Amino acid sequence: MTRRKAGKRRHDGRGAAELRPVTFQRDYLPHLAGSVLASFGRTRVLCTVCVEESVPGWMAGRGEGWLTSEYGMLPGSTDRRKPRDRSGKVDGRTVEIQRLIGRALRQAVDLRALGERTLWIDCDVLQADGGTRTASITGAWVALRDAQARLKKARKIRKPFLRTQIAAVSAGVVDGRPVLDLDYVEDSNAGTDMNLVMTGEGNFVEIQGSAERGAFSDADLASLLALGRGGIAELFRLQRDA
Amino acid sequence: MTRRKAGKRRHDGRGAAELRPVTFQRDYLPHLAGSVLASFGRTRVLCTVCVEESVPGWMAGRGEGWLTSEYGMLPGSTDRRKPRDRSGKVDGRTVEIQRLIGRALRQAVDLRALGERTLWIDCDVLQADGGTRTASITGAWVALRDAQARLKKARKIRKPFLRTQIAAVSAGVVDGRPVLDLDYVEDSNAGTDMNLVMTGEGNFVEIQGSAERGAFSDADLASLLALGRGGIAELFRLQRDA
Amino acid sequence: MTRRKAGKRRHDGRGAAELRPVTFQRDYLPHLAGSVLASFGRTRVLCTVCVEESVPGWMAGRGEGWLTSEYGMLPGSTDRRKPRDRSGKVDGRTVEIQRLIGRALRQAVDLRALGERTLWIDCDVLQADGGTRTASITGAWVALRDAQARLKKARKIRKPFLRTQIAAVSAGVVDGRPVLDLDYVEDSNAGTDMNLVMTGEGNFVEIQGSAERGAFSDADLASLLALGRGGIAELFRLQRDA
Amino acid sequence: MTRRKAGKRRHDGRGAAELRPVTFQRDYLPHLAGSVLASFGRTRVLCTVCVEESVPGWMAGRGEGWLTSEYGMLPGSTDRRKPRDRSGKVDGRTVEIQRLIGRALRQAVDLRALGERTLWIDCDVLQADGGTRTASITGAWVALRDAQARLKKARKIRKPFLRTQIAAVSAGVVDGRPVLDLDYVEDSNAGTDMNLVMTGEGNFVEIQGSAERGAFSDADLASLLALGRGGIAELFRLQRDA
Amino acid sequence: MTRRKAGKRRHDGRGAAELRPVTFQRDYLPHLAGSVLASFGRTRVLCTVCVEESVPGWMAGRGEGWLTSEYGMLPGSTDRRKPRDRSGKVDGRTVEIQRLIGRALRQAVDLRALGERTLWIDCDVLQADGGTRTASITGAWVALRDAQARLKKARKIRKPFLRTQIAAVSAGVVDGRPVLDLDYVEDSNAGTDMNLVMTGEGNFVEIQGSAERGAFSDADLASLLALGRGGIAELFRLQRDA
Amino acid sequence: MTRRKAGKRRHDGRGAAELRPVTFQRDYLPHLAGSVLASFGRTRVLCTVCVEESVPGWMAGRGEGWLTSEYGMLPGSTDRRKPRDRSGKVDGRTVEIQRLIGRALRQAVDLRALGERTLWIDCDVLQADGGTRTASITGAWVALRDAQARLKKARKIRKPFLRTQIAAVSAGVVDGRPVLDLDYVEDSNAGTDMNLVMTGEGNFVEIQGSAERGAFSDADLASLLALGRGGIAELFRLQRDA
Repeated sequence: MTRRKAGKRRHDGRGAAELRPVTFQRDYLPHLAGSVLASFGRTRVLCTVCVEESVPGWMAGRGEGWLTSEYGMLPGSTDRRKPRDRSGKVDGRTVEIQRLIGRALRQAVDLRALGERTLWIDCDVLQADGGTRTASITGAWVALRDAQARLKKARKIRKPFLRTQIAAVSAGVVDGRPVLDLDYVEDSNAGTDMNLVMTGEGNFVEIQGSAERGAFSDADLASLLALGRGGIAELFRLQRDA
Repeated sequence: MTRRKAGKRRHDGRGAAELRPVTFQRDYLPHLAGSVLASFGRTRVLCTVCVEESVPGWMAGRGEGWLTSEYGMLPGSTDRRKPRDRSGKVDGRTVEIQRLIGRALRQAVDLRALGERTLWIDCDVLQADGGTRTASITGAWVALRDAQARLKKARKIRKPFLRTQIAAVSAGVVDGRPVLDLDYVEDSNAGTDMNLVMTGEGNFVEIQGSAERGAFSDADLASLLALGRGGIAELFRLQRDA
Repeated sequence: MTRRKAGKRRHDGRGAAELRPVTFQRDYLPHLAGSVLASFGRTRVLCTVCVEESVPGWMAGRGEGWLTSEYGMLPGSTDRRKPRDRSGKVDGRTVEIQRLIGRALRQAVDLRALGERTLWIDCDVLQADGGTRTASITGAWVALRDAQARLKKARKIRKPFLRTQIAAVSAGVVDGRPVLDLDYVEDSNAGTDMNLVMTGEGNFVEIQGSAERGAFSDADLASLLALGRGGIAELFRLQRDA
Repeated sequence: MTRRKAGKRRHDGRGAAELRPVTFQRDYLPHLAGSVLASFGRTRVLCTVCVEESVPGWMAGRGEGWLTSEYGMLPGSTDRRKPRDRSGKVDGRTVEIQRLIGRALRQAVDLRALGERTLWIDCDVLQADGGTRTASITGAWVALRDAQARLKKARKIRKPFLRTQIAAVSAGVVDGRPVLDLDYVEDSNAGTDMNLVMTGEGNFVEIQGSAERGAFSDADLASLLALGRGGIAELFRLQRDA
Repeated sequence: MTRRKAGKRRHDGRGAAELRPVTFQRDYLPHLAGSVLASFGRTRVLCTVCVEESVPGWMAGRGEGWLTSEYGMLPGSTDRRKPRDRSGKVDGRTVEIQRLIGRALRQAVDLRALGERTLWIDCDVLQADGGTRTASITGAWVALRDAQARLKKARKIRKPFLRTQIAAVSAGVVDGRPVLDLDYVEDSNAGTDMNLVMTGEGNFVEIQGSAERGAFSDADLASLLALGRGGIAELFRLQRDA
Repeated sequence: MTRRKAGKRRHDGRGAAELRPVTFQRDYLPHLAGSVLASFGRTRVLCTVCVEESVPGWMAGRGEGWLTSEYGMLPGSTDRRKPRDRSGKVDGRTVEIQRLIGRALRQAVDLRALGERTLWIDCDVLQADGGTRTASITGAWVALRDAQARLKKARKIRKPFLRTQIAAVSAGVVDGRPVLDLDYVEDSNAGTDMNLVMTGEGNFVEIQGSAERGAFSDADLASLLALGRGGIAELFRLQRDA
């Protein structure tokens, strides 16, 4: 890491392995089981957990619960207004992201311990400055923990359904240099873009790396994994402190 | 007003002619021309103004601008999760509300002074506790004023395009008694529901009164108009103070 | 009223407080429970009542009925062909109108007396010359009365389900002068447009007033209410005579 | 034909080769170029012609016109209410019928003589009792002739664009017996159903025969063609008389 | 036939009454009950039969089965790429064709002998060179026969459900000359286009003849029927040999 | 690799690092610029390249081309019939796959050398037995090479637009053991599933690894990458031989 730390600062003054300021504002919507306004720098995502006391028809009667996720961006979240998804066609990027959020969080949940209920995770981006999918996953985990506490207090569940901690972060190669937690400007210029989701035990839930221009080498991959692992360790700490 | 003030308190302790606590948090999304988080009690609406430097095709070349409005509710805004409008069919209530917001605010804007640009007003409900349409209109006016100031500072407009102040409030007959600014509990029990939009000069932009059960008399109408007029005067003061 | 009657004639020769010629052609489609071709001048709307011997799932088992309404315009109803609503997106104006028709007529119906059946009200505009929503409501009430008579004759209901008479009319400020029952030319030039729905007892079911340009005063409101009240009294007489 | 005429009467008293009472009410919507309310017994179809002074983009600049057709049924046109086509999916039968109407009428029109304009044919069924597609084609031809006269009078066209007369009729095998112009009851019981469209010169524009149960023989085909030919000759006379 | 055989060759060297080379490649997808790659010259259609062990809700409990059909073209099947039907709107031609395929094949099936199961027929065009609907029907019949054999072997049915053989062919008037089994070039230039579906007993299931330019005479009709009848006899032989 | 080779055989007899039999049938649709039927065992995908001599509007005038991709599965491709994507909503998995195919192949193409034209890549699955996305990418590259040759022969391009070779393969942890190129049975039981896309130079274009149950370790990741790298080397050889 020495080389990167010694290198020139990023456009916002951060070091290569440095996260943006991260905060989790809990119970942002007090009427819900869990709701967290997660901020990664200027990226702000409202992560909510709604509990529905039933499961989809194809799952009923198994004694297991379900977790599903939707992702959206408010029209004013970007510099140029983003039209609403009202045409009946959700755009491909949104589909990809909400599937990723759902898959990632389901790995954290013991569906049997949850019982026959559905956890609806909604991640709505109020302001978008890069890394909205990783902020969504990381913030939603905090909201899930709050929902778990409320369900337990209400004696709807007997034991915790969260079996591990989950956090996510991005890393990428920008101007030939691997950096952590890209903002929008960096993301637009990245040659390679990687998103990592990991468990509290240090294992991988998801690795998604894409070359935006050309391709990336084994060495790039190793650097990005190392950066990501460091960032996620820091996020785990911030989640616990929240 | 004496009679109503003397009457028994409402379920949340308010007098019949009393607004909920109203606040306007300006520049909630600093990258936009205008953005206000308007709160009427537990109802919270994010009102944003995006400026697009063109008008719809059918208007081009006239030297006039346009204002259009969309309204939405986040899935977590209600006690029971509200599904997203992604089916390609926007529900009727949403259509009605966003048309109302657009009509109301267009009355405040001198489209010629605006020049050939479009003001996109988005009102997204973060938390819904009754009166979301009136909070939307009232908050969006504050955001419009901020957008006007920014456009003027950037020398994109020469003179103000806002030709009047606009605010909106609801009134209704609940348990036989006319009251101002209904919350969700009151709204669900109202026999008559009225929404008023007025200008700074004290004239009407919109009157929408509906009997939910049976019908309402001339006397009811007069009471509701009086309550509304009083509430809007108070809102004008709060908008100016914001 | 003297002032207005003394004033200059409207573009079609009517006085300010004068309705267009209004007729109700009953049993236009003899296979239905009720069907009325309502004409307000050149505006012609086919209002039908279809009776379905069940209610929507969410209402079943309560011993109550339901009334729902749809509104449409035939492609040839306007001077310039109106495209069909086949895209899966019903336009906002249509949504607003059919919600208004449904709300207004439900206030006339005792859903318990109706029993567990659904009344489908369809208002299809054959020719559009302003005031289609008020012609729809007024004509549909006549069709409902016929449907009531048939259901009673067939011994499906024991007592009448109509608990009041309902009619609707528009009024507006055209060239600075309040006038009743606007046709298309007047509607296009109106500064303020108001639709009123009232019961036989003289109470309000709906008031919808919109400023099209600027705003309207208390005095305008009073004039429009007076005109509307007079027009509706006349319509009640015509409905009874039909 | 002797055998059939001698045979037992049909359920409504008609002979096998007899049309239902057919009428064409011209200029039903006087603001349009052509509009005909065509009645074949209880089947009533409103056929309108709207003229648009342009052609679809892919045709522009060729000096030729276009004719296109849409077909619809009002919700109250059938005994059991027919839901509107608002889901974004037009049902297969409707698609088939409106394509047939368009193909058939285009054979009657000299698109070059029409000039660069589009004729929109709309056939809306007010009451449906079998044979709506043949009533649509036959009635629309009368409306086209009226539209031609108006365009000529307005000097928009120099010479007639109709190069032949067009009419359509159905025939079918009901209870083993070939009959002409089936109503709904007969259509529901037909073993074979055929629709014929012919020109004034006695040639075929369309033949569509379908076995509903099993198959039909050469002899059946010959009988149905003979019935159809006779019916169309009668319709040509009625169109000219209209 | 002598005249036509003696006439000048068609653009691909065929005689007027000659089919293109026809082959049926059975069990193209071995995991299905029936699957046939049918080739009529360069036209290639994959016809599959999927068996579902239930019927649509409205048919349940009658002891009868159902057959339904869908038709599609792969994007690469035509010279100019054909966009996918993903907009939610299936184009009119596709609707017409899949309804024709379903109607035609249902005439071949004894739905009672089939039992309460659904046969899904899918006809997907890999390469399109005219006559895709007739190749679909003719190929699907071969796939149905295979599916019948498999269901019988698996003892799901006791007796055959196919009660007759079905084949289809096109004929048309090209350059004033009636010819059989048109390819794309001929189809584009045809004055009249006819599709015939017949049973093994020599009866008609469907006749669909359309004038593409002007109209066609009795004599044309007779010639096309004779050509079609000959072509179908040949196809019956090829189906049996497959 | 020794350990895995020595291990017990997979359910189809393959070793852990062994691909299924892979073939590329070129020019499957001879009328297209490129078309390859790629088979990976029982998985068969038809990969086509259609060349359109223009680019999307937003790209026009830059002198660069575009490549876009769509993916679909035929209804008969799976054991249980897969409904068509005709509802207007493409399912999430399909969206993910076609975005992956497009991104991967764009890395292989020099869009400037391509010139202002669009390459449409369509990957349609005839038979699905796992690994359809990797077969799609690998087969489409072969079709792209054929398209390049044809464009060059037709003198539409001066120099090759393919700047590297691209292939893709899956690897996963099944029953605790890392294996290459999973078929459907293995894929359904995999604890971790990874898709790799690489260039001829041995660099990564895409890495997508998902834990299906729990999470995967650094060691698992290393094994899967090694397996994938070996499989892709073999695929590069097969592509060149095709």
